[in-house]
Amino acid sequence: MQYTGYALTKQISLQCIALIYRVIHSIEITRPSFSLHFIDPEMKYCSDCAHPVSLQIPPDDSRPRYVCQQCGVIHYQNPKMVVGSIPFWDQDEEAKILLCRRAIEPRHGYWTLPAGFMENSETTAEGAARETMEEAGAHIELQALFSLLNVPHVHQVHLFYRARLLDKDFAAGTESLEVKLFTEAQIPWDEIAFPTVTHTLKFFFEDLAASRTGKEFGFHSLDILKPMRQ
Amino acid sequence: MQYTGYALTKQISLQCIALIYRVIHSIEITRPSFSLHFIDPEMKYCSDCAHPVSLQIPPDDSRPRYVCQQCGVIHYQNPKMVVGSIPFWDQDEEAKILLCRRAIEPRHGYWTLPAGFMENSETTAEGAARETMEEAGAHIELQALFSLLNVPHVHQVHLFYRARLLDKDFAAGTESLEVKLFTEAQIPWDEIAFPTVTHTLKFFFEDLAASRTGKEFGFHSLDILKPMRQ
Repeated sequence: MQYTGYALTKQISLQCIALIYRVIHSIEITRPSFSLHFIDPEMKYCSDCAHPVSLQIPPDDSRPRYVCQQCGVIHYQNPKMVVGSIPFWDQDEEAKILLCRRAIEPRHGYWTLPAGFMENSETTAEGAARETMEEAGAHIELQALFSLLNVPHVHQVHLFYRARLLDKDFAAGTESLEVKLFTEAQIPWDEIAFPTVTHTLKFFFEDLAASRTGKEFGFHSLDILKPMRQ
Repeated sequence: MQYTGYALTKQISLQCIALIYRVIHSIEITRPSFSLHFIDPEMKYCSDCAHPVSLQIPPDDSRPRYVCQQCGVIHYQNPKMVVGSIPFWDQDEEAKILLCRRAIEPRHGYWTLPAGFMENSETTAEGAARETMEEAGAHIELQALFSLLNVPHVHQVHLFYRARLLDKDFAAGTESLEVKLFTEAQIPWDEIAFPTVTHTLKFFFEDLAASRTGKEFGFHSLDILKPMRQ
């Protein structure tokens, strides 16, 4: 991968945006009537002092941020992490993966690996184990990190750990309609909730097949880009 | 790793905290006089409607969240990602790594790998390349993800990519006092800004040594825990 030119282009683009902002809006931008794809739209007031915020490019910065017009606090917005596991059952004749059918939006009724937003004060592995317990009531032995998938248009990074399912005493949590074991042939590929889950499952079954010839499971990284960025 | 018991204990602990909160504060907690380590302290007002927020445990949740008393919006707080690179120069007699001396707090004057907070709408690799350009002006070819380090007490996850430095035409950015190449023997171990950087450098030089016997660079994951959690 060659990022030199790309990083430079991106940097120049951001500086251009910054310049246009400064010229048109005299540094301060209040209540913009347009949306910027790298800004979450919802911030209106300062969470520190309740005064209105405005979009500004702070000194020594290249991106518009929500800045309080009263106290000057800059409210940064950053991507969130989704952490989950690939619960693997190897005690039957054929290997199986545990999937959950979503009881919540988005993608209500579709199948997913147990996963959810990482919480403050936990590690990525703790978060993956917690989500597996909450959504599938599954007893697992967490193994190595298996996949990292960027989803930049929704400001998310998804991480999945391999996990050995210890027993079949699992049960749907409040966010799942049902939880069920699937062999590779049984996976409902057209009813998978998210592309990050589809890709992780495909990587997993590829590595599982390769493991039968003595190869170790790998670590996989992929960017899920919107068609316009591909 | 066996997470079954741990996840269960953590879940029970959270349910206990939730119960104590509900009993003592009749579900709603306004202006708490104590701090919770998994809550960022700064939120006072709703960023949607400017009314005061209070700490509450929403239905079907187990953690206190900032909830608006007026419009009911739940303001979730999640860990942030720090992304960076390990710029590696292999054209001299001895291999060298590019480090930056910090011009900003925290850890002003200490040495670090180029890294910073991941931004919305970028991938982890794009963020790592951007930070390398911004802090070190370095032209790199980004390679595989090398380390993932959890720092749960500050709600952060740090990711470092291996990177091949393409030339010596680098220069300190606004957040760096100076940037400089170091051989392994020259690394200022006592003046490294963050434990995540120290561990990543140690992993890197271990893998570099192993690579001379034909072994490939690996992927390393580590949790940096406070002494009380170790």
